[in-house]
Amino acid sequence: MLSKNKISFINSLNQKKYRTEYGVFVAEGTKLVTELLDSSFELETLVALPAWYEANPLNRFRGERIEASEQEMKKITLFSTPSEVLAVVRIPQPAAFEFPLDDLVLALDTVQNPGNLGTIIRLADWFGIKQVVCSLQCADIYNPKTVQSTMGAISRVTVSYHPLEALLERAVDELKLPVYGAFLEGQNIYRAGLSRNGVIVMGNEGNGISSSVERFCTEKLNIPNFPIGSPTSESLNVAIAASIVCSEFRRRHI
Amino acid sequence: MLSKNKISFINSLNQKKYRTEYGVFVAEGTKLVTELLDSSFELETLVALPAWYEANPLNRFRGERIEASEQEMKKITLFSTPSEVLAVVRIPQPAAFEFPLDDLVLALDTVQNPGNLGTIIRLADWFGIKQVVCSLQCADIYNPKTVQSTMGAISRVTVSYHPLEALLERAVDELKLPVYGAFLEGQNIYRAGLSRNGVIVMGNEGNGISSSVERFCTEKLNIPNFPIGSPTSESLNVAIAASIVCSEFRRRHI
Repeated sequence: MLSKNKISFINSLNQKKYRTEYGVFVAEGTKLVTELLDSSFELETLVALPAWYEANPLNRFRGERIEASEQEMKKITLFSTPSEVLAVVRIPQPAAFEFPLDDLVLALDTVQNPGNLGTIIRLADWFGIKQVVCSLQCADIYNPKTVQSTMGAISRVTVSYHPLEALLERAVDELKLPVYGAFLEGQNIYRAGLSRNGVIVMGNEGNGISSSVERFCTEKLNIPNFPIGSPTSESLNVAIAASIVCSEFRRRHI
Repeated sequence: MLSKNKISFINSLNQKKYRTEYGVFVAEGTKLVTELLDSSFELETLVALPAWYEANPLNRFRGERIEASEQEMKKITLFSTPSEVLAVVRIPQPAAFEFPLDDLVLALDTVQNPGNLGTIIRLADWFGIKQVVCSLQCADIYNPKTVQSTMGAISRVTVSYHPLEALLERAVDELKLPVYGAFLEGQNIYRAGLSRNGVIVMGNEGNGISSSVERFCTEKLNIPNFPIGSPTSESLNVAIAASIVCSEFRRRHI
């Protein structure tokens, strides 16, 4: 039985204000929920159809289990289509961030679309990038759309929020890491030297990398369109650009 | 003045049924609308804030112009946030499709998410791929979410719908074109031979390329994750996968 209070509680988690207040977020769908069940995330509550519980024996789950009808699942979904299962998940303590000296880190400067952020986390996972650092102006990793578009990668990639400038200053000045950013006037990425380690900065959907962050980019890269310099195509979605950049970095070293 | 009838008419265009019945679709936002105004698309109606008309002198536009308040723009938007301008655009006659013998074509097998379809059209534009062919099960190119996520590329890339199998059979048997598909068991794309021409097939979000289409794939490619064979990361979004594949094809020949 799903109480009215529980329904309002779950619906409120669409807003960051309430996620912060209660310290939890929502994940929907079998794939995402089972990946979270297998991870270090702490699931407080599961709400699912009876058939879902039958198909998914939860041997290790110690939280609250609620059975709900399809009608009730419709009331709690934060999307247009309800899932067979929804989990209320505790937001973990922010992880301490330290630059790895021998691997890549993805840094996001004001990536504001929740779906783009989730898609970038998913592709970071694919390319074995274990840490994504976000500027404070980025979308919230626990936004339902972000969580959903990670497709489970949220349980494997560590995402943390920092003032990017201070972090990048340390990367460049103290750690002597290369900091790569995508710019229109950058060097053709397909011909540029790309190291095994360092920071890859991706910028805002509309405005690219901000000037305060650009100061710390030691290497400027450009993804050429085709034919090169063709005037018609104007831009790439930031997640698409991130995937091309990550693919190019990784292909050099496999 | 925006009549009640016009508001219902525009709202109805969120549904394919009405887009087909009236032969029109909706585009919102300055960037998209100005790109369409500069293209061969025929714009029937513009609805915009007075300030938008002042900032955008429409010298060549001969259609209906309606001024609307912010309140009225809220009533007609098909999104959660209204734009300053909305256009009702005539759906053009389906273009005849012919395989180019010297260039790449992107073929989509049941890509069902409208945002993914739009993002793929946008990246095809970036990579100079002028034609995208969709199976009949793909999302509708004139779905508002698709139109929006093309970011204007819809005015430069020709999209047509066909039973893919018949088309690919002709590509392979008659035209002797290579047909590339992304498969888990395919060859590492970074090491595979990739031609300047041929067909790149991308599959459904959940199920990949269907078996009836797989039969016509002469070359199977795989995008390796990193480290190669790592068990954790499971999949890439189809638009992300398409971008990595297109980037890899184009980088060989620039």
